[in-house]
Amino acid sequence: MERVLRVNMTDRSYRIEPLPEAWRLLGGRAITSRIVATEVDPLCDPLGPNNKLVLAPGLLSGTTLSSSSRISAGAKSPLTGGIKESNGGGQSGLKLAQLGYRAVIIEGQPREAGWWLLVIGPESVRFERADDLAGLGQYETARRLFERFGRKVGLSVIGPAGEMKMNIAGIGNTDPEGRPGRMCARGGLGAVMGSKGLKAIVYEDVGWNPPRSLDEAVWKAASKAYVQELRTQPATAERYPKLGTLGVLELVNKVGGLPVHNFRWGQDERALEIGGIRVREIILERGGQTTHSCMTGCIIQCSNVFVDKEGQEIASSMEFETHGLLGSNLEIFDVDWIARFTRECNDLGVDTIETGGAMGVAMEAGVIRWGDAEGVMRLMGEIRAGTVLGRVLGAGAGIAGKVLGVQRVPVVKNQTISAYDPRAVKGNGVTYATSPMGADHTCGNTIALPIDHLDPSDKVAVSREMQIVATALDVLGFCNFARGVMSATPQTFADLFNARMGTNFTPEEIRRYAVDVIKQEIEFNRRAGLGPETDRLPEWLRTEPLPPHGAVFDVPEAELDRIWEGY
Amino acid sequence: MERVLRVNMTDRSYRIEPLPEAWRLLGGRAITSRIVATEVDPLCDPLGPNNKLVLAPGLLSGTTLSSSSRISAGAKSPLTGGIKESNGGGQSGLKLAQLGYRAVIIEGQPREAGWWLLVIGPESVRFERADDLAGLGQYETARRLFERFGRKVGLSVIGPAGEMKMNIAGIGNTDPEGRPGRMCARGGLGAVMGSKGLKAIVYEDVGWNPPRSLDEAVWKAASKAYVQELRTQPATAERYPKLGTLGVLELVNKVGGLPVHNFRWGQDERALEIGGIRVREIILERGGQTTHSCMTGCIIQCSNVFVDKEGQEIASSMEFETHGLLGSNLEIFDVDWIARFTRECNDLGVDTIETGGAMGVAMEAGVIRWGDAEGVMRLMGEIRAGTVLGRVLGAGAGIAGKVLGVQRVPVVKNQTISAYDPRAVKGNGVTYATSPMGADHTCGNTIALPIDHLDPSDKVAVSREMQIVATALDVLGFCNFARGVMSATPQTFADLFNARMGTNFTPEEIRRYAVDVIKQEIEFNRRAGLGPETDRLPEWLRTEPLPPHGAVFDVPEAELDRIWEGY
Repeated sequence: MERVLRVNMTDRSYRIEPLPEAWRLLGGRAITSRIVATEVDPLCDPLGPNNKLVLAPGLLSGTTLSSSSRISAGAKSPLTGGIKESNGGGQSGLKLAQLGYRAVIIEGQPREAGWWLLVIGPESVRFERADDLAGLGQYETARRLFERFGRKVGLSVIGPAGEMKMNIAGIGNTDPEGRPGRMCARGGLGAVMGSKGLKAIVYEDVGWNPPRSLDEAVWKAASKAYVQELRTQPATAERYPKLGTLGVLELVNKVGGLPVHNFRWGQDERALEIGGIRVREIILERGGQTTHSCMTGCIIQCSNVFVDKEGQEIASSMEFETHGLLGSNLEIFDVDWIARFTRECNDLGVDTIETGGAMGVAMEAGVIRWGDAEGVMRLMGEIRAGTVLGRVLGAGAGIAGKVLGVQRVPVVKNQTISAYDPRAVKGNGVTYATSPMGADHTCGNTIALPIDHLDPSDKVAVSREMQIVATALDVLGFCNFARGVMSATPQTFADLFNARMGTNFTPEEIRRYAVDVIKQEIEFNRRAGLGPETDRLPEWLRTEPLPPHGAVFDVPEAELDRIWEGY
Repeated sequence: MERVLRVNMTDRSYRIEPLPEAWRLLGGRAITSRIVATEVDPLCDPLGPNNKLVLAPGLLSGTTLSSSSRISAGAKSPLTGGIKESNGGGQSGLKLAQLGYRAVIIEGQPREAGWWLLVIGPESVRFERADDLAGLGQYETARRLFERFGRKVGLSVIGPAGEMKMNIAGIGNTDPEGRPGRMCARGGLGAVMGSKGLKAIVYEDVGWNPPRSLDEAVWKAASKAYVQELRTQPATAERYPKLGTLGVLELVNKVGGLPVHNFRWGQDERALEIGGIRVREIILERGGQTTHSCMTGCIIQCSNVFVDKEGQEIASSMEFETHGLLGSNLEIFDVDWIARFTRECNDLGVDTIETGGAMGVAMEAGVIRWGDAEGVMRLMGEIRAGTVLGRVLGAGAGIAGKVLGVQRVPVVKNQTISAYDPRAVKGNGVTYATSPMGADHTCGNTIALPIDHLDPSDKVAVSREMQIVATALDVLGFCNFARGVMSATPQTFADLFNARMGTNFTPEEIRRYAVDVIKQEIEFNRRAGLGPETDRLPEWLRTEPLPPHGAVFDVPEAELDRIWEGY
């Protein structure tokens, strides 16, 4: 029997409740968004006692079907002021699903200062003091918790940024080897966790206990077909395993959409130095690891372990978004530095995209010069120390721009744009503008499609399709890289859903379900004061031509406004 | 023939245009809001070249009819993101009206760094370099400009805050003695002026040249009736001349609505130390000046000149809002310190309300301790120096709260609430929530009405009435203190309007006109992304009881939403 765990941090009480009938078919983003939309006042203080942090595995999480055990975190975002779902890899989704919880709802707020652990077992929950962990980075926090609770537990932790309730703070989940770098990164959900006085959540290990499938025969056939498709498609069979997310860098650079110098140029010949091919060479030369899984059971294995010249691990994993925002965007084309930034961000517990956006603003303001990698590390030290400058950067690119007097700030709904310049990758521009999540490529990434990314026509339809697919993936707990399979064989996806839930949905009904999730999020945002007029890119992206092609973001506003019309 | 001056700062060109027929009856806030609403893209960068700064005298400005020569400044606000009209006293409205301009529209933005003067004459305009004034405070700027252009000119200037494009920056207008402390303070319009590369506007003196009245007989009778009423009502005949705006402090404290300790308490016995009665005593003891006019012709004379123990001028004028936000709100009950803060704010060119809100946040965050007046002066030094901390405070209370991790921040639409706690003065709470200008008491102040301010019932109607009256005053160029006359003898107001414009409006039609101005502003805000869901006070003002009476802001949201229904 699946359950819901409801925790109140005001008095450290909890209730284990049966899954309400209304939530029976909801998982991942669908259940986090439903709970936030129905239980959280859209006008509440996101860092106050009336916000709720919801953690939910995807519907297939815990089955160890490849790439399906992501965990969704949801709340009202302190960064955007709207609803947020941010999902991450690692073991948390797997562990939580195997504990039998469809969702954990964290309410309230301690009245006194101090830090807590929430230790979740199958039949009970414990609250333990965590003041000894205060101020520690995510790595040391995880190390101590594994020492205390054994290596088999899963962990969701926050670092110093989350403790300081910074907008750039995420929630770190541990990977199979125990690294706490699989982040629910975006939207400041680490700050929400911090506002609840929670330094970490410990998921006890219960062994092999996957959520029940209601039709084993269909499940077996569909999961076999799914794995077969993953092994057939070139992206999941070869590119992602070899190059990871960095495999897209060369393409984005070629399209002229790579952020360079705070989104001033879309292309740079130095970019190949930090691209997927080069990084793979370096990792293999030095004895690091490519083709690494962030979660048990994944056969795509897009993760990697980057090591220094002596073979010592620096960071896992090197990701395209980090290379875009903290690399090319800052004119830092040195992969060793980017590895150190990655490690530092994973230890601070911050979103590398938002941090990169803020660093770009700092360079634009002259706080440090372009390309100054040591300066970036120094500023990360300011974030860790919680100095005023560190807090300015920790508030994200939008606020940093307002404070430091920078107008070219790459944000939508106050959230930093991912590493695809919307003037060049216009489908992603539509996603940034219209997604209820703010500027987040994971809500509808169009880069992999064989289309003319510079041409504005039809990009609303393209983004809409990718937003639907992304939402469906977020519900099931699938990683974005299962996207190709869902597009190619939607019936397989419907079968997986139906086998698990005992339903008989058509692929079209699965799409309908995803659209309903998005619409509920849009309605929450409207009530929070983020109406359709906020579905816009900043003015400079609509007027400043992007070299080398000179494109601006020119998808008509009327088309943006009609994205869900008739859906 | 009245004209409009259109200035383009990109290439330093200008055109003097005949007043368009559509604007024939528009003045003050009506014309600034019309121009902003129809010519400015609601989604433009407020500090970019596509925002416009509009300066407009009221329709009666330049006549020297008492208290009627205020100047309206309008633009898209960098603080709120919505439309803004902020009006100020001093001589600017008078001079600009006598030059024959109904409005000055400042467009574009210089492509190169550097500062400019705009020198406005009756038939032509000059642009002069002002790089020698860069970084200077408003006082020294004014001193040098009077030296250069003679004492008879009027000036609108910005200080260091406006140059740094801070959200707390206003525009300073000179009073009859040349002090540049009559601020168009609110909404960051000094930053907009700074973004245009304009350090100052010089209004040449053309002698006695009032705008033409179209019916002299009606004008004479109505202006006589108006002055008679001013001389009859106790507030304008006695309280304001003697005590100025500070005359309300004792009342607000008694009602329990004075901000104390960042709006944590509504009353403090120490408040009488900084109230109107005590300040008048001190001024008279020391040989300062009460009953001082901020503009030629004013018979209310609510201004004052505060001097130190040696009789040396510190500041003019000591105002209630400053005493509330930079005094009691910070637990500084020392009028000499508040005088120094006033002087410093007028020299920096900042809004004392927004600055006080930000200082309260700084105290809440522990940057300085409560009551630390030297600390406040030191932080003002940080603002002047443009340090990171100074810029955080210069961004206003809302952003300072987000950066410094403070959640109890008294803002609506990101603008600091004036010195009437909305939990105690609920009509003002409705104004803060619903005014298109954000939390600004001047848009509809209910404190002078003989009502139970704590009772939520009917406060929407009360605020609406005051918003209509305030808007009508803003159109004609009247100071808020003419409010009592307009309420008591609306026909006199209609007569003044009709005599000046050659119309035949009833008082009801004047009200209709005012409502149309407000509705146009609301529509601009909606298109800028500030829809009706943003017409709310922050959560903590709705939930945290205010001592001594324990009130919360409890005017129902549904009533707020219907404020203009049927109007």
